Amino acid sequence: MHFQKTADGFELAINGTTVLRHSAGSTCIFVGKGEERMDMYRGNFDIEDYVVERLALRHAEVEGDSVTLSDAQGQQPRLRLSISDNSVKVDALDPSVNRFWLRMVAEKDECVWGGGEQMSYFNMRGRKFPLWTSEPGVGRDKTTELTFKADVSSKAGGDYYHTNYPQPTYVSSRHYALHVETTAYSVFDFRRDGFHEIEVWAVPDRLEFFAADTFTALVGQLSLRFGRQPELPEWVYNGAIIGLKDGEQSFARLEKIRAAGVKVSGLWCEDWVGLRHTTFGARLFWDWKANEERYPALRQKIAELADNDIRFLGYVNPYLCIDGSFFPEAEAKGYFAKNDTGETALVDFGEFDCGVVDFTNPEAMDWFAETIIGQNMLDFGLSGWMADFGEYLPIDIHLANGVDAKLMHNAWPTIWAEVNAKAVASRGKTGETLFFMRAGFSGVQAHCPLLWGGDQSVDFTRHDGLVTVMSGALSSGLLGNAYHHSDIGGYTSLFGNVRTAELLMRWAEMGAFTPVMRTHEGNRPRDNLQIDQDETVLAHFARMTAIYVHLAPYLKALSTEATQTGLPVQRPLFLHHEGDRQTYEIQDAYLYGTELLVAPIWQAGQSERTVYLPQSTEWVHIWSGSVHEGGQEVTIAAPLGQPPVFYRKDAKNAELFAGIRNI
Amino acid sequence: MHFQKTADGFELAINGTTVLRHSAGSTCIFVGKGEERMDMYRGNFDIEDYVVERLALRHAEVEGDSVTLSDAQGQQPRLRLSISDNSVKVDALDPSVNRFWLRMVAEKDECVWGGGEQMSYFNMRGRKFPLWTSEPGVGRDKTTELTFKADVSSKAGGDYYHTNYPQPTYVSSRHYALHVETTAYSVFDFRRDGFHEIEVWAVPDRLEFFAADTFTALVGQLSLRFGRQPELPEWVYNGAIIGLKDGEQSFARLEKIRAAGVKVSGLWCEDWVGLRHTTFGARLFWDWKANEERYPALRQKIAELADNDIRFLGYVNPYLCIDGSFFPEAEAKGYFAKNDTGETALVDFGEFDCGVVDFTNPEAMDWFAETIIGQNMLDFGLSGWMADFGEYLPIDIHLANGVDAKLMHNAWPTIWAEVNAKAVASRGKTGETLFFMRAGFSGVQAHCPLLWGGDQSVDFTRHDGLVTVMSGALSSGLLGNAYHHSDIGGYTSLFGNVRTAELLMRWAEMGAFTPVMRTHEGNRPRDNLQIDQDETVLAHFARMTAIYVHLAPYLKALSTEATQTGLPVQRPLFLHHEGDRQTYEIQDAYLYGTELLVAPIWQAGQSERTVYLPQSTEWVHIWSGSVHEGGQEVTIAAPLGQPPVFYRKDAKNAELFAGIRNI
Repeated sequence: MHFQKTADGFELAINGTTVLRHSAGSTCIFVGKGEERMDMYRGNFDIEDYVVERLALRHAEVEGDSVTLSDAQGQQPRLRLSISDNSVKVDALDPSVNRFWLRMVAEKDECVWGGGEQMSYFNMRGRKFPLWTSEPGVGRDKTTELTFKADVSSKAGGDYYHTNYPQPTYVSSRHYALHVETTAYSVFDFRRDGFHEIEVWAVPDRLEFFAADTFTALVGQLSLRFGRQPELPEWVYNGAIIGLKDGEQSFARLEKIRAAGVKVSGLWCEDWVGLRHTTFGARLFWDWKANEERYPALRQKIAELADNDIRFLGYVNPYLCIDGSFFPEAEAKGYFAKNDTGETALVDFGEFDCGVVDFTNPEAMDWFAETIIGQNMLDFGLSGWMADFGEYLPIDIHLANGVDAKLMHNAWPTIWAEVNAKAVASRGKTGETLFFMRAGFSGVQAHCPLLWGGDQSVDFTRHDGLVTVMSGALSSGLLGNAYHHSDIGGYTSLFGNVRTAELLMRWAEMGAFTPVMRTHEGNRPRDNLQIDQDETVLAHFARMTAIYVHLAPYLKALSTEATQTGLPVQRPLFLHHEGDRQTYEIQDAYLYGTELLVAPIWQAGQSERTVYLPQSTEWVHIWSGSVHEGGQEVTIAAPLGQPPVFYRKDAKNAELFAGIRNI
Repeated sequence: MHFQKTADGFELAINGTTVLRHSAGSTCIFVGKGEERMDMYRGNFDIEDYVVERLALRHAEVEGDSVTLSDAQGQQPRLRLSISDNSVKVDALDPSVNRFWLRMVAEKDECVWGGGEQMSYFNMRGRKFPLWTSEPGVGRDKTTELTFKADVSSKAGGDYYHTNYPQPTYVSSRHYALHVETTAYSVFDFRRDGFHEIEVWAVPDRLEFFAADTFTALVGQLSLRFGRQPELPEWVYNGAIIGLKDGEQSFARLEKIRAAGVKVSGLWCEDWVGLRHTTFGARLFWDWKANEERYPALRQKIAELADNDIRFLGYVNPYLCIDGSFFPEAEAKGYFAKNDTGETALVDFGEFDCGVVDFTNPEAMDWFAETIIGQNMLDFGLSGWMADFGEYLPIDIHLANGVDAKLMHNAWPTIWAEVNAKAVASRGKTGETLFFMRAGFSGVQAHCPLLWGGDQSVDFTRHDGLVTVMSGALSSGLLGNAYHHSDIGGYTSLFGNVRTAELLMRWAEMGAFTPVMRTHEGNRPRDNLQIDQDETVLAHFARMTAIYVHLAPYLKALSTEATQTGLPVQRPLFLHHEGDRQTYEIQDAYLYGTELLVAPIWQAGQSERTVYLPQSTEWVHIWSGSVHEGGQEVTIAAPLGQPPVFYRKDAKNAELFAGIRNI
């Protein structure tokens, strides 16, 4: 990659695709100064920028692989771009600059995907995406009562771009990808015909370019850049991970569930740490060790589960509650982030305060990994956990590394993943212990073995329901996250919004065709239907776990493939059908490997669904065996228990797939 | 006023108050380029700016009364400021500039008032105010169900700064005022401690400064600048203007109302033009002449009303419906604004299209004034009307004067006022005919004899109810609008929000202490309580009209005073109590002239109210006669029929005021 000098500027191309085009009359780089306002309220942010100056850097001096930019000829140079391989290093020559805007060459009908884990829009073209890790919001749709109520009650309604896992990286249908190496707040704006505008609230370290002739090769490059995950643990293939948080009742309920024919690989009890009772209801006790009162003789129970090839999973997050056992130790050792007066910064999580363990202090990180996760979780016998949060780093605290918390905020999910991965590695259990995260940022790929799609509402809504999980899987998958899964049945039940049996069953149908099946009781278990409360639901769920187990050989091969190629298990249709433009915007169906096409029912009351089948091959409907030419939409019956799934007629695993009909 | 040269910049002061302070390190002027996006939906706008460049003009060359500004010494000059009297003329020297930002020197505890007619916040300090004439919105509070529903159903919820009458002018508690002479979209941002930022989406023509040692003198200056209104017509003092839109039933209902003792000065029938039936319900027929079907023999009726000293008022707005009688004539004469293809631009007002009469064509203006208002309204016998709209000029039409509709949009209310005033003047009826407008902009003062506060919701809400009328009266009053009034009982009834008897009575209590009492049946007369439907309400209303008539001599003196001094009838407390800082933020009480203090009940279910009485005088409670020292809050009983009103103990009109107790 080299700068191409032009009459009054330069161009930059990668693999024959022009990505930057600069002239005095049409500047592609702007710098300036901004004064941001950021207010956080329990993981939800209100953010506004006051741009004091924004200057077009019209004059470019190109010298070899370096360009120096200034407002005009003879003026103070403000920025230098230097190419090294396929990266452009960015250096501010004017120290007052704290805002950076870049215009990437764009085409009107271009598609752009990525941006981390995007839950509402897989193709980001035509919209603007602030990239800042936060709560995704409840409902995420300003036109709905649910979002309105969440906004009014707790500023928690969210919007289409809110995500636990943003990442300043996109893949273009022009067969290139851009990654902006920065942890600052950034905005990717894909609304303009002729350019994409990248805004960064700092001078980014680097612009990294990737290009390949095929999308699969491009994804492979990105997965190498950000890190590939180990293969899924063998034990996962045994069935679903059952989420129960019912104290010791959980074991009896699990037995009932197993007795109904459910294939089970693990029991996940997030309440293993015990409960705290608040006026909002029961919350977990944020002190990360087994709670004898709620789970008496837990190690004995874990051993008994192991006798049946069932693993036990728990829960952890990066905070420690002030009234817990670890807090005094961490405080005495100075492991907490500090407030403005140099004392431990306390964060209110709703009637209880917590300290933020300062992972920028290597000692604190090691202590958390060794003492908490290592000794109290891994050595105790946990085979995995939800590694929750990561999005909540307060922006007004002081960290040991001296970096502004506003710059560490986006970095935190990756650091949090690293803490977990480090603990797992210390016990030699990488690829064996399975923790899962909703938060992410650039580089989380190298540490987190499994994403989970966050806290969907328990409904079929467009921006916070079942369908959003697919967009999350596809967008994050393109950036090198091979494994994605979700809370079967959704999580968030607020303002009277509760689960239906239909939702639970449709979600399980999708879950059977994802790398990991895992249920969740949700935030209000008592108000919401559980898989073990309804015979039909339970029988349906059992069958779905059997399908999951039946597909295990295929999934296992995909897992091996992921480590070799970086391709995710769930893939957008276009990844293997790039010649078929009609596949580029599909976000409610996915390829499962190359051979299966999964198009879950994601709306209520549907008994059939119309599915677009990619060109150039024939597709077999998995339930009826009917064969369909690609390159057309087909409408297919989809009663409960028969989610629209197709396999390629030429699939190597055709026999395995056809066998599903007998389950 | 002169530029004061400093080490590396300049200062500007007026009457000893520094208003601008510029140095290379702390620039007070920025220019740049923006690309706006403006979407209009029936008077509601969605507006966003993409600021491409924003440059600090650091280098100032001061030469006498002129300053030339550039980015840096030796660079292209971009802007020139030239003083002439108390104005600063602004000239762009760089033709590409279309954005202008100005930082006015500010103090943290400063108050700022004005901004046109501001309905939510009288003191604008601490908030940001886009200035763009539009629908004010329904509910105007994003935290309420009402606003949420209005937003979702028709983008019509509005926000605190939305107003029919914005004006880029403010009065500062530092005893100066700034008026920005421009019709472009602008934003006054009063959120920062050290400066107010004025943003204009154009280079403004002038910055006009005003200063005086007292606020009353400052208001006097502003009223001279923008134009003073004639005195109120004599006939208004006869009582209330009764709004009925019931076709010929209106006359019988008026008789019943009069029989109940209501003092009546006029009958206002907005449906005098007839109705159009749409799926949304009955709408007016937008063809501005009497409708014989709905009002048979209307001239006879007007004459009969006149026998009883009652005037008849109608309704007009600047559009003509495509199926009306005037449309073909206006189209044939080329009087309509054009669309992109050069044809008459049609605007959809909800199942009917209208042409926009192009008042920038002097012939079209004369035709509307003479043919429509002159012949069909004034000569017909109307004594006044609601001159509605003015806020809706579409931004994508083409006007005869060749000016961008985006620059004419804010100008339109004043031009519309001028059309009406011109027609009235042509019949020698200035000061005799009373039309009233909700829309306004700089200069509307010279043409519009009476403001009305727009379409409040029929409720007691903070941002769209009764209380907002006071803020509207006080803010517009400071800028030279002496007369303000409102729809008694409010107007907008949507989503099940309907009038209560209490609301109607409390609103009438306030109306008795405003320049004009006028009722409105509201947008949904059948669903909402009317003054003639409830005996208690009617008797209460009759008494309030008697109070209004009783106060007429006082009001008349205030009207005379307004023509002489520019002081409005309704005044903020601080206007006559500048030494008393506690009065500066009061927006739910007002002085009525100097001698009365009116503190209406504006919340439901109140039987008393706490009122702050300004220092340095004693105040007599008008109903009980109790005397209270100023400089304190008093809590006073306020049953229905006894709104909290006080008069100065030393009032010249004390006897008149005390006489109210006998009504």
